Amino acid sequence: MTNPKAQPPKRILTGITTTGTPHLGNYVGAIRPAIVASHDAQAESFFFLADYHALIKCDDPARIARSRLEIAATWLAAGLDPTRVYFYRQSDIPEIPELTWLLTCVTGKGLMNRAHAYKAATDINAANGEDVDAGINMGLYCYPILMGADILMFNATHVPVGRDQVQHIEMARDMAQRFNHLFGRGEELFVLPQVVIDEAVATLPGLDGRKMSKSYDNTIPLFEGGPKRLKETVGRIVTDSRAPGEPKDPQSNALATLYQAFASAEQCAEYEQALREGLGWGEAKQRLLAQLEHALAPMREQYEALIAKPSDIEDVLQVGAQRARSIATPFLARLRDAVGLRRMSAPMTVENSIATETKAAKPSIKQYREADGQFYFKLLDAEGRLLMISPGFAQPRDAGQMIGKLKSSPAAVTELAGRQLGEGCSDADVEAALLAMAVE
Amino acid sequence: MTNPKAQPPKRILTGITTTGTPHLGNYVGAIRPAIVASHDAQAESFFFLADYHALIKCDDPARIARSRLEIAATWLAAGLDPTRVYFYRQSDIPEIPELTWLLTCVTGKGLMNRAHAYKAATDINAANGEDVDAGINMGLYCYPILMGADILMFNATHVPVGRDQVQHIEMARDMAQRFNHLFGRGEELFVLPQVVIDEAVATLPGLDGRKMSKSYDNTIPLFEGGPKRLKETVGRIVTDSRAPGEPKDPQSNALATLYQAFASAEQCAEYEQALREGLGWGEAKQRLLAQLEHALAPMREQYEALIAKPSDIEDVLQVGAQRARSIATPFLARLRDAVGLRRMSAPMTVENSIATETKAAKPSIKQYREADGQFYFKLLDAEGRLLMISPGFAQPRDAGQMIGKLKSSPAAVTELAGRQLGEGCSDADVEAALLAMAVE
Repeated sequence: MTNPKAQPPKRILTGITTTGTPHLGNYVGAIRPAIVASHDAQAESFFFLADYHALIKCDDPARIARSRLEIAATWLAAGLDPTRVYFYRQSDIPEIPELTWLLTCVTGKGLMNRAHAYKAATDINAANGEDVDAGINMGLYCYPILMGADILMFNATHVPVGRDQVQHIEMARDMAQRFNHLFGRGEELFVLPQVVIDEAVATLPGLDGRKMSKSYDNTIPLFEGGPKRLKETVGRIVTDSRAPGEPKDPQSNALATLYQAFASAEQCAEYEQALREGLGWGEAKQRLLAQLEHALAPMREQYEALIAKPSDIEDVLQVGAQRARSIATPFLARLRDAVGLRRMSAPMTVENSIATETKAAKPSIKQYREADGQFYFKLLDAEGRLLMISPGFAQPRDAGQMIGKLKSSPAAVTELAGRQLGEGCSDADVEAALLAMAVE
Repeated sequence: MTNPKAQPPKRILTGITTTGTPHLGNYVGAIRPAIVASHDAQAESFFFLADYHALIKCDDPARIARSRLEIAATWLAAGLDPTRVYFYRQSDIPEIPELTWLLTCVTGKGLMNRAHAYKAATDINAANGEDVDAGINMGLYCYPILMGADILMFNATHVPVGRDQVQHIEMARDMAQRFNHLFGRGEELFVLPQVVIDEAVATLPGLDGRKMSKSYDNTIPLFEGGPKRLKETVGRIVTDSRAPGEPKDPQSNALATLYQAFASAEQCAEYEQALREGLGWGEAKQRLLAQLEHALAPMREQYEALIAKPSDIEDVLQVGAQRARSIATPFLARLRDAVGLRRMSAPMTVENSIATETKAAKPSIKQYREADGQFYFKLLDAEGRLLMISPGFAQPRDAGQMIGKLKSSPAAVTELAGRQLGEGCSDADVEAALLAMAVE
C-alpha cells in the first residue's frame, strides 16, 4: 500500500501530562522549546493531553477536569498554534485504547517487568518487606503499552523525551517490530519511532538554586496567582547577605539564570555586570520581576481569557480530535484488517483464507494443564492439526523434560507410553514434525 | 440518580470464543441451552463474539476472520434470534477497549497475579527452569480486565460460565466495587455481576466415550463437512465386538447418550431397548445418524446459506453493534464523566468546579400509584414539562424494572406498549431526555 522505501514524513509527538499546574521551569524547559520546534515547516507536530495516563495516578475527577483545562489553556496561551499542529486530548481518540489492546496482544510480559517505573515501585515494596506488587495498579504496569499506542497510532518518527522515558520509546519500537513481523506481510505498518533527547534542555533553578521542581517545593508559578503571586515568589529567591554596593557573584544564586531565560544576551551581560558592580539584591529582584512580567503578562492575559471560556478550548480540542482522527481512524482500520478483524464481505472458503497467508508455519508444541490436574503437551502440525497428545505428567517439569528429549531424539517418541496419536497420524508423522521443528 | 434500591433488569451475558470450529459437544453443551435461555422474556440476553480475546492466542489473521464467520453463522443457524437478543462482535464496540483502560487504572496488579490461567503458565515455566514469564504475553495477563469490561459495559447481572471462569467474574465484581467506591459518589455505576453455573450442563461423549473435546481429538463435527463427514465420523464411534443379535449394554459406549441428546424420552427408551435386544452396532449407528441428520439438516442448510453470504451476517452484526452501542455509548459517557474526562463547558474555577458536582436541573422520573390501583411513572423534562406517562403496572417492582431498562437503553422506549406521550412530544424527545439523565 505505502511504499516502504519512501522516507516517512517527519512527525514529532509530544505528550503533555495533565496533572499539576505548570511552573516557570516547565515553560522554559518544555513548553517554549516544543512550541518553537512546532514551527519547523519540514515536520508535522502532534501535541496531546495525556489524560488517560492521568487516571493512573489520580482518582480525583475534579482535579483531572481542572488540570486538563489549565494545561490546555497554558499551551495555547504560550503560543501553540492549533491550526499548525495536531493538538488533541488523548481521551478524544477512541482508536488509542483500541490500539492499546492490539499491542497488548503482541507484548511480552517480560518486557513490562523490566520497565523502570514498575521496577522502582517493586524495589520499594521489597525493601519494605511487602509483596513486590503491593499497591501497584495495572495502569502503572501497562502504561508503556498505552504510550506505545500514543506513538504508533500516528506513526510518529521523533519523540522528544527526558532520559527517564527513553526506555518507553524502545519498548514502543519493540511492539512496532513485533507487530510488523507478525502482521505486516512484508509491509511496515508501523514506523519505528526515534528518541530525541535534547541535551541542551534548559533546566531552570528554583528558589533555592536547585533544579526547579514541584517535588523540591521551590517553583515559581507561570500564570497562577497573577503578578502579585509572581512578585511574592521572586521575593523569596534565596540570596546571600551582601549589602547594596558590595560586589556580587552572579552565579551565587538563581537570579541571573532566571533572568537569562527571558532576556537577550546583551541584557544578560548588563544584568550580571550590574551585580558585579554592587547592585543590591532587592533591586536585582525587581529587575528580574520586570523582565518576567514583560514576557509573561501578555500570555497571562491570554491564559485568563481562555480559562474564563472553557467551551472555546473545548471547541479547539474537538477540532483537534477530528483532525487527529482523520489519521487514526483509517490507520486503525488497516491494522484491524491486518490482524483479522475484518468486515465480512466476499464469500470466503478455507482455501482462499489460507491462500492469503504467506508465512511459512512450523509444527508446534503446546503445554497445558487438564482438568485432572496433570500436565500435558500436544504436538500440532504446521496447519495446527493435532498430531499427538502426551500422557499426563504429575509435574510440569517432567513434561518439559520429555519435550526436550523428543526434540533432541524424535525417534524416542515410540517409547512414550500413553501417547495418543491424532486422527490418521502415525508415529512417523510425529517424528517428521519433531525433526522439522529441530531444523527450524 | 438511579435508585440503588431498585432491582436492576436481568441481563444475561454470554461471550463466544471465535477460535476453532464448533462440534456437536459445543452445540449440545453450550449453544442450544444458551439459545433456549435467550427466550426468557424476563431477561435481556447479550451474546458477543469475543474476537479481541481471540487475538491473545491467535496471530493468524485468516483464521480469526474465518472463525468469526463460522461461529456467527453457527449461532444464527442454530436459532439465535438477533432481533430478540443483543448479538454483536466485541471488536465493533470501541467503548469496550476504552472501558478496559478505565478498569485497568482501578485494578491491583496483585489481583491479576492470582489469575488461574496466568498462574498455570508460570508454573509450567518455573518447572522448566525458565523465567516465570517466558513466552507469556500481556494479552493473557490482562485478559481478566478485558473480560471485566465485556461484562460491566452492559451491567450484565448474570454471566453463565464454566467453573474455570468463576474467578474472572469475581474479578469483575472487584473492579466494579472499586470503581463504584472511587467514582460513584454514592451511586452504583456498575451492577455487581453474578456467576451462573449450570451444574446440569450436558457434556456429550466423544467417539472414544470420553468427554467430546478438541483436545482429545474425538469430536463429531456440527456442520463442517456436511452429511458425508457426519456419516464417516459416526461410523468411527468406538463400540465393542458384540455381533448383531447379542444383547448390548446401551451405556457401554457413546451411542445412546448421543442419541438421547437429539431425541425424545420415548425414542431413547426404544433405542436402548433395541440395543438390549441385540440391535447390531452398525444398525444402531445408522439410527443415530438418521436422528442427528433429522435435527441438524435444516440448521446445516441455513448455515451453508449464511456462510455463502458473509455480507448478510455482517449486516446482522452491524445492526447488533448499533443496538449494543445504544447502551454502551451513553453509559461510557457517564463513566467518563465520573472519572473526570468531561467536556469543558461552563466557565470553571476551582470553586465552581466543585459546585458542578452538585447537580444541575435535569429531566426526572416520578413514580406514583393511580386510583386504579396500578403503578405508573412519568418522565418530566428539566423544566418539569410532561414528556411521557407509562402504562400501568400491577407491581411497583415491574415499574421500577422498566425505569431501569429505559435508563440503560433509552431506545427501548419505542417498545413500551401503552405509553402516552406529552403534548407535542415524540419518542425521540423521550429518548433524548433519558440519555440526558444517563450522562448527567
